[in-house]
Amino acid sequence: MDKDLDKKIRIHQLYDLYGALLTEKQKTAFEYYYLDDYSLSEIAEILKVSRNAIHEQISIATAYLEDYEAKLGLLSNREKLSKILEKYKKISNHNDELKAFIHELEIME
Amino acid sequence: MDKDLDKKIRIHQLYDLYGALLTEKQKTAFEYYYLDDYSLSEIAEILKVSRNAIHEQISIATAYLEDYEAKLGLLSNREKLSKILEKYKKISNHNDELKAFIHELEIME
Repeated sequence: MDKDLDKKIRIHQLYDLYGALLTEKQKTAFEYYYLDDYSLSEIAEILKVSRNAIHEQISIATAYLEDYEAKLGLLSNREKLSKILEKYKKISNHNDELKAFIHELEIME
Repeated sequence: MDKDLDKKIRIHQLYDLYGALLTEKQKTAFEYYYLDDYSLSEIAEILKVSRNAIHEQISIATAYLEDYEAKLGLLSNREKLSKILEKYKKISNHNDELKAFIHELEIME
């Protein structure tokens, strides 16, 4: 997988986990840029602020997301859980209780 | 269980989950008050600030913890997971795969 895509996926995952903690302004700029794929200049035009202001909002938002992950580690935990789930899913075919348990965990996620 | 104890347990759980997001000053005041059980006046004396300042730090910290929970819901998720775990633990006695899976999840927690 190329590095840019890796980075983009990580940013999306962090936003999914911690986006609720960002300010409305940060969320708006972030979503235009990372989710809707607008350029900085396009977002600046839409929101009627400078390109620089948008750049700053997005940089700050991204730094906050990484900081939340460094402090809470939810993405890292989710990845660990996902590996364990995959492992037991493979052996759950003939184990109905295990299958039911995995199903309940997946619904909860 | 009496209400005060319920509230105290909840505050401890929230601090356990989100404490890392508080500032150093908030953490210090919070820990003296909720973990070490000092009075506001005692903490004010130790930290050489006004009783009012300590009161404010603790109030703000508590409000932040509740706000994080309202936005991320980690405590609520943990409680749901814990219920599911308990349920399957009860039936895992004769199911080694299920037992192993529960064990891995508990280590991860």
